[in-house]
Amino acid sequence: MTSVAFIGLGIMGRPMAVNLVRAGFTVTGFNRSPATVEQLRAAGGRGADSLTAAVHGADIVATMLPDSPDVRDVIAGDGGVLASAAPGTLLIDFSTIRPDVTRDLSAQAARGGLRMLDAPVSGGEQGAIDGSLSIMVGGDAADFMAADPVLRAVGATIVHVGPAGAGQTVKAANQLLVGGTIALVAEAIVFLEAHGIDPATAIPVLAGGLAGSAVLDRKAAAMAARQFRPGFRAALHHKDLGIVTAAAREAGAAVPLTALTAQLMGALNARGDGGLDHGALLRIIEDLSGRAHPGPTRTETSS
Amino acid sequence: MTSVAFIGLGIMGRPMAVNLVRAGFTVTGFNRSPATVEQLRAAGGRGADSLTAAVHGADIVATMLPDSPDVRDVIAGDGGVLASAAPGTLLIDFSTIRPDVTRDLSAQAARGGLRMLDAPVSGGEQGAIDGSLSIMVGGDAADFMAADPVLRAVGATIVHVGPAGAGQTVKAANQLLVGGTIALVAEAIVFLEAHGIDPATAIPVLAGGLAGSAVLDRKAAAMAARQFRPGFRAALHHKDLGIVTAAAREAGAAVPLTALTAQLMGALNARGDGGLDHGALLRIIEDLSGRAHPGPTRTETSS
Amino acid sequence: MTSVAFIGLGIMGRPMAVNLVRAGFTVTGFNRSPATVEQLRAAGGRGADSLTAAVHGADIVATMLPDSPDVRDVIAGDGGVLASAAPGTLLIDFSTIRPDVTRDLSAQAARGGLRMLDAPVSGGEQGAIDGSLSIMVGGDAADFMAADPVLRAVGATIVHVGPAGAGQTVKAANQLLVGGTIALVAEAIVFLEAHGIDPATAIPVLAGGLAGSAVLDRKAAAMAARQFRPGFRAALHHKDLGIVTAAAREAGAAVPLTALTAQLMGALNARGDGGLDHGALLRIIEDLSGRAHPGPTRTETSS
Amino acid sequence: MTSVAFIGLGIMGRPMAVNLVRAGFTVTGFNRSPATVEQLRAAGGRGADSLTAAVHGADIVATMLPDSPDVRDVIAGDGGVLASAAPGTLLIDFSTIRPDVTRDLSAQAARGGLRMLDAPVSGGEQGAIDGSLSIMVGGDAADFMAADPVLRAVGATIVHVGPAGAGQTVKAANQLLVGGTIALVAEAIVFLEAHGIDPATAIPVLAGGLAGSAVLDRKAAAMAARQFRPGFRAALHHKDLGIVTAAAREAGAAVPLTALTAQLMGALNARGDGGLDHGALLRIIEDLSGRAHPGPTRTETSS
Repeated sequence: MTSVAFIGLGIMGRPMAVNLVRAGFTVTGFNRSPATVEQLRAAGGRGADSLTAAVHGADIVATMLPDSPDVRDVIAGDGGVLASAAPGTLLIDFSTIRPDVTRDLSAQAARGGLRMLDAPVSGGEQGAIDGSLSIMVGGDAADFMAADPVLRAVGATIVHVGPAGAGQTVKAANQLLVGGTIALVAEAIVFLEAHGIDPATAIPVLAGGLAGSAVLDRKAAAMAARQFRPGFRAALHHKDLGIVTAAAREAGAAVPLTALTAQLMGALNARGDGGLDHGALLRIIEDLSGRAHPGPTRTETSS
Repeated sequence: MTSVAFIGLGIMGRPMAVNLVRAGFTVTGFNRSPATVEQLRAAGGRGADSLTAAVHGADIVATMLPDSPDVRDVIAGDGGVLASAAPGTLLIDFSTIRPDVTRDLSAQAARGGLRMLDAPVSGGEQGAIDGSLSIMVGGDAADFMAADPVLRAVGATIVHVGPAGAGQTVKAANQLLVGGTIALVAEAIVFLEAHGIDPATAIPVLAGGLAGSAVLDRKAAAMAARQFRPGFRAALHHKDLGIVTAAAREAGAAVPLTALTAQLMGALNARGDGGLDHGALLRIIEDLSGRAHPGPTRTETSS
Repeated sequence: MTSVAFIGLGIMGRPMAVNLVRAGFTVTGFNRSPATVEQLRAAGGRGADSLTAAVHGADIVATMLPDSPDVRDVIAGDGGVLASAAPGTLLIDFSTIRPDVTRDLSAQAARGGLRMLDAPVSGGEQGAIDGSLSIMVGGDAADFMAADPVLRAVGATIVHVGPAGAGQTVKAANQLLVGGTIALVAEAIVFLEAHGIDPATAIPVLAGGLAGSAVLDRKAAAMAARQFRPGFRAALHHKDLGIVTAAAREAGAAVPLTALTAQLMGALNARGDGGLDHGALLRIIEDLSGRAHPGPTRTETSS
Repeated sequence: MTSVAFIGLGIMGRPMAVNLVRAGFTVTGFNRSPATVEQLRAAGGRGADSLTAAVHGADIVATMLPDSPDVRDVIAGDGGVLASAAPGTLLIDFSTIRPDVTRDLSAQAARGGLRMLDAPVSGGEQGAIDGSLSIMVGGDAADFMAADPVLRAVGATIVHVGPAGAGQTVKAANQLLVGGTIALVAEAIVFLEAHGIDPATAIPVLAGGLAGSAVLDRKAAAMAARQFRPGFRAALHHKDLGIVTAAAREAGAAVPLTALTAQLMGALNARGDGGLDHGALLRIIEDLSGRAHPGPTRTETSS
């Protein structure tokens, strides 16, 4: 039976680890704050007291961490995965981080005789619980095939999009599209309200045509109702748009709308609303429209 | 049997008039260039030599024209609909024009004892042929009910969104969303290509999640292949974004991404590509990325 | 002695009319609210009870009005200048309005045997008082020469920039530059403050180099001190940026930064700060930066 | 007599080092490509074969290098300044680099018993030759006073703007203002041309009022004439705008116009025009306006 070390048992990582247990893997979890390890134990997994202990003897090491420095630290830091894992171990990083960091870590792993895939996901907490995530995988084709049982245990749409870093690049494109579409839907909602039209009346007819989008389907009603309980936090999307604009700059790709969206998401974060759902970008648009709106207080954000 | 005068038998108007014939209406068409009238006659409709002749005796007058000045001229100009139609006639304007022009014409119609609905559509030429258009209707509820058989003959999703002008306002929001989403998809495609990733590989995994949109489903593959045969011409979307930004300005609604999209669509038009599909906005993004691409020559646009 | 009718005795028009009196012209003023006429009388001018009375017998008719509709009404409306002035009369419109409206009115004037110059000014209330305005003149060269004594009485830098409408076009470019530079200076101030640097320390070294501008010299200190007493009101600059973006659109000129500036100035206006100086655009940038700042209350705006 | 090691003898560094020689300092220069050292020798300076040799025995070490990694390498790399200089040595970095890198290097220097000022300059090659640079200095006040004779030998406007990194932050604000103003002037020029007005006629009247700027005074005529020989290369301004947007992001400062300017400057660079003067941003605006213009060929850039 394949053994998996799972590092990072947060909102996304914990249900993914649980799904691996259910799929029959021997899963040993590690998290900086140990409370979440207990929940994995309750589901039939094991806990480890240290990263080294978790990685020891694992066939596969999975990571699901917040940002580039966390992943760099866990994989390449003192006492990290590269220092602890046996040669031949397959690393699968589910985190959303900078493509250049991924490529660098992948090269370090290769020099140490390890294999690494970048495998960022989309689909949110519900997708993680349901095992229905979309996974964008970068790395060698052979490693992708070796990872197949693990990936199938946590995701539904699984695509090998290219070499190391390509998964992160496609995830960056994903966040570009999601962030920009939220901004556009926010503009449309405020535009309609400013003309005295209830968005609830207009959204269905908009959603049925070429203007339709998953954001319009899943988020517009909550946005129009000023319900911003996350979901996906604005602070994380702000981080992701920093990755997108930096990667675009590096490649010489012009992303004018995204650069502007990044400014707006940054504004949402700067005013202290990073804990709200990213749909709260509507707040920035309505502020710019002189339309202050009694919305949810900040205490409504998830704890 | 209800008689309908149909003014404006272009790419959209002609198949709509034909669908009215098929639904059992007595349809008399008029078009400035008479060739298209013949095609309506071939489908069982009638042709008129003048606008006055077409309108004479009609219960309902439908208009489908390119821009605000055209509609103003046909409805309120010398020898126009207001001068020719009998009191009580119901006008249904399917054109996409400025909401303030619609409100003005509607008020003029009311003063002359006529009733008017603004009923802009989305769904394109195929939707017009199939009778599956989405229709956003502004005007009085009673007039909306009276128009129901006509609207059902040409559309599938039909929503009464508010008083006179509201249909145009919702259509403006529709064009805001479509234009902005095209710009975002263009940025995503160029971003991926600049990183050496084939968009064809990435689009399916992007389309399945929160980044998904009708533009991604229906247009991204053609955009990535640089196939820009219209479809919906950039010149018309340029016109529509002018309507959107003016209406936003009038209402005090901030639309920063849309203002930027309008600049990009204007750029596409200014360089002589207004006859291409609006998906050709990709050309502007790839030019800004220093990635000239051998695409379709301009003669590939529809004649 | 040349007689001048001066229509529009507001903050700018009144001191301009007074300077014409001082230069020896016989000046008859008219204003919708008659209080300002008294002030012209006190300075040695005459007042008229009606536009027709003011224009009667005048060699030159000068206008200084807020917006395009006002100018259209005063010049081409019922009982307006075109209806009242004798053939051969020279009209000088000092207002800042849409170039296309100017061209239209100029053509109407020509058909009526009158001559018209567009002569928008910059330099503000102080420049109007001092007679040191910059004047951008559009129209026939012969008319420009005929207007020379009048223009010299109110301005210092006087340039004939082209045919009818050209003055308005150059004024639009002026407002483009001023508005955008204010936005950039606002970004620089907030950027410095966010890094803990007092703008008062940095502004002099910035002003001395290629970053220098009249906005930095004359407005940055007040902006950094959150003193927004006008000066030039944001509401008027908002109007002017509407003229700029529409004129750019008409000519196919891309103005991406200006389109964005127009959104920000619109936001300032939409939140009710249109009565503040245009330098208050800083408020929008600091709001977007989560840096609310105790500034002047709105009652500090000029009455 | 104070001895100065000068590392980096490029377009800016060489004339600065020569001015130090003229002011009576003993100057030992080092440059990776040794040709430029000869020119310093011809002016009365000395050359060194290695960085270590140059730094050995120097009271002051000055650096003038292209980008953050170069400065990091020269100061903190193997065999760099920190490894070679005697305790108490004063480092003056004239380069324009990231404020966070400066702060990091300054802290490293302090730990090694050295003192460091960041002292980026503006004024260009001519200012370097004339010794009339503006210098924005960050660091301790005592070090600033100690550096005074060196700074006066190369600059005219010298301001201590704050602690370590503050000089770079103010320089970033400088580049923000310069880049944005160039973009605005480009928009104004294309706007005027699109309306048939010769910019050469309009620039003087624009320059005299609130629209005036150093860019309008010094660069607009060359831009309108499509003369883009550097001057300051677009590639360097592209680098600098990357610093600005990253520093703004770090501090939570919204810079929407600058984010857009960075996209446009990136576009100029991406299409291969990074070797032209930054005024060539006009090319991007005229491209977006469909106004291709026969301009200087790329071989006109300085060699």
